[in-house]
Amino acid sequence: MNKKIYNFGAGPGMLPEPVLQQAQQELLNWQGKGVSILEVGHRTKDFVSFMQNMEDILRKLMQIPSNYRVLFLGGPARLQFSMIPLNFLKKDEKAGFIISGIWSDLAFQETVKLKDAYIIASSKSDDFTAIPAKNTWDIKSNSKYIYYTPNETINGVSFNQVPEVGEVPLIADLTSCMLAQPLDITKYALTFAGAQKNISGAGLTIVIIRDDFLNFHSEEIIPTMLDYKVQIENNSLYATPPVFNCYLADKTFRWIDSIGGVEKIYAINQHKAKILYDFIDTSTAYYAPVTKKNRSILNVCFYLHDQKLEEKFLMQATENGLYALKGHKKVGGFRASLYNAMPLEGVVNLIEFMDNFAKQNHL
Amino acid sequence: MNKKIYNFGAGPGMLPEPVLQQAQQELLNWQGKGVSILEVGHRTKDFVSFMQNMEDILRKLMQIPSNYRVLFLGGPARLQFSMIPLNFLKKDEKAGFIISGIWSDLAFQETVKLKDAYIIASSKSDDFTAIPAKNTWDIKSNSKYIYYTPNETINGVSFNQVPEVGEVPLIADLTSCMLAQPLDITKYALTFAGAQKNISGAGLTIVIIRDDFLNFHSEEIIPTMLDYKVQIENNSLYATPPVFNCYLADKTFRWIDSIGGVEKIYAINQHKAKILYDFIDTSTAYYAPVTKKNRSILNVCFYLHDQKLEEKFLMQATENGLYALKGHKKVGGFRASLYNAMPLEGVVNLIEFMDNFAKQNHL
Repeated sequence: MNKKIYNFGAGPGMLPEPVLQQAQQELLNWQGKGVSILEVGHRTKDFVSFMQNMEDILRKLMQIPSNYRVLFLGGPARLQFSMIPLNFLKKDEKAGFIISGIWSDLAFQETVKLKDAYIIASSKSDDFTAIPAKNTWDIKSNSKYIYYTPNETINGVSFNQVPEVGEVPLIADLTSCMLAQPLDITKYALTFAGAQKNISGAGLTIVIIRDDFLNFHSEEIIPTMLDYKVQIENNSLYATPPVFNCYLADKTFRWIDSIGGVEKIYAINQHKAKILYDFIDTSTAYYAPVTKKNRSILNVCFYLHDQKLEEKFLMQATENGLYALKGHKKVGGFRASLYNAMPLEGVVNLIEFMDNFAKQNHL
Repeated sequence: MNKKIYNFGAGPGMLPEPVLQQAQQELLNWQGKGVSILEVGHRTKDFVSFMQNMEDILRKLMQIPSNYRVLFLGGPARLQFSMIPLNFLKKDEKAGFIISGIWSDLAFQETVKLKDAYIIASSKSDDFTAIPAKNTWDIKSNSKYIYYTPNETINGVSFNQVPEVGEVPLIADLTSCMLAQPLDITKYALTFAGAQKNISGAGLTIVIIRDDFLNFHSEEIIPTMLDYKVQIENNSLYATPPVFNCYLADKTFRWIDSIGGVEKIYAINQHKAKILYDFIDTSTAYYAPVTKKNRSILNVCFYLHDQKLEEKFLMQATENGLYALKGHKKVGGFRASLYNAMPLEGVVNLIEFMDNFAKQNHL
């Protein structure tokens, strides 16, 4: 295969080529020890020291202060939808949700299933083409915490600033945007991210918790593996962690650092998204439904005006090495996920393809 | 590094060299598609078909009948300690535990924390050097299920037959022995195994459930990610699965198949354990504390009579390419984990080293 492949999948997403190349080179011989990282015991001195170094570089990249704990947990981010209410809500307490897409809605539904929650505002009636208008927000002062999803991958909707919630602790699902754009972690009580978009392979979730928020712990009886306090006391090693995912995450952190950190990556990400949205907005063939100020730079959702051509578009895109452009089944159309690992040339190739496709089909 | 390394760690354990070599070769190009398996979307046709083929080969190796469901879940096996009682015990119901080591004890403690359980029998007072004597077993007829751990990795204790529990559903933690020895799956209502010993890297748990046992589901409200029914309805894809771990598991399944299946692997495993135990039993320097009929063939626990020499033994073993022989901190001494991927020559080298060490120290 000579053609270069660009994978626009929303997750598991593309990984940086240098990260994969290093992983390949070292796969049977980690740190010159003659064994694979996959075979290294998680309680060995070497691995414990590796985990500490990994945490240090993440702290540097995200400027995480010392009053925050960082966890590297096995399993999908979706488990956090349950862990957060189980850990922090007592029976008579409730959490507030700003719902701007399908993921924040799912997190809300899981919270209501297990404990109690209310909707501060939702843009569901607008098909999630914007974040909820600020003048519709109804924040109850007795909210235990407020939850939102800064970047919604399915709808391609993004907050352009941190919600103002006063003194109420703020929780954010950063699954698709951690390390892809700058973030003031001190505004948050708890954030988390599944690793399979900008960080590593699927199977690792990073959780960052402010010390004082742990005092909000409900102290009700919950499954031990789901107890943040237990995980913190055991430095993420209460059970065997996903060793290879941690290893790849470390490589990605170092790759981001070598490029110039999150600010630099963000500038590149902004440019990638800008040229694609600019092309779509000036095109007669395509349109992007999301309100301009809430457009995600990481998940660009768009449609053909002539929806009959969708399948042809996807087939020809794949033939041209432009993979996984199909939109989520709940919204249809197309989605180009432009995570950190997507090179600018991938976006340039996509635009060129889209332009040619429009011309060839007289759109 | 010229010396061949043998990793006797209890988990993450050694992986078959051909599996690692294939993974290395394909790491940037899965199935000739020009992308890494790490980047493949879990809802793509290619991946869904891969998962089905993987399940098929596991079903063949373990002779799993069609009335059993197979799940491939992200996260550690220890989560099953919570999931089993949450899914199957109502408030007034209890489970019986046969406790033969630290892992079955931990599973019991988690069950008592969340629901109700009782001890059928325990060999704790014998420091877990045997399974509990059959004449001490007290099985209550109203037990919802009975739980045990066929192979205890920390203590090196193994059941030499399936417990007779009448009509009560039987649950087994196969984390260290799945695919290392034959198993009549039809005797079990539910079995599970973390993958990091005989199957794949850490971060994947395989669960096998008999259809009719699912009717025992308590129907109480539990976190959605922990609900077996949800996972079954979604073919393990409710959330993103640990893609790379599944990929490696598939490779290991095919490696076992190529060797001649579980019976063949078991014969090799028996031989590896026999020569090591035989050496220990005839040695004046070492001893193995576990009752002969309950000795694990997968985790061989042994001690030096002269415990002052332990550190020297471990240091010299490592220098000789014999890694991770230190016993678990709860029991001390040494442990040689002889999982499927440990070649016979690794055990031969270990015995030779142990013999030389004894002679050099006049033991």
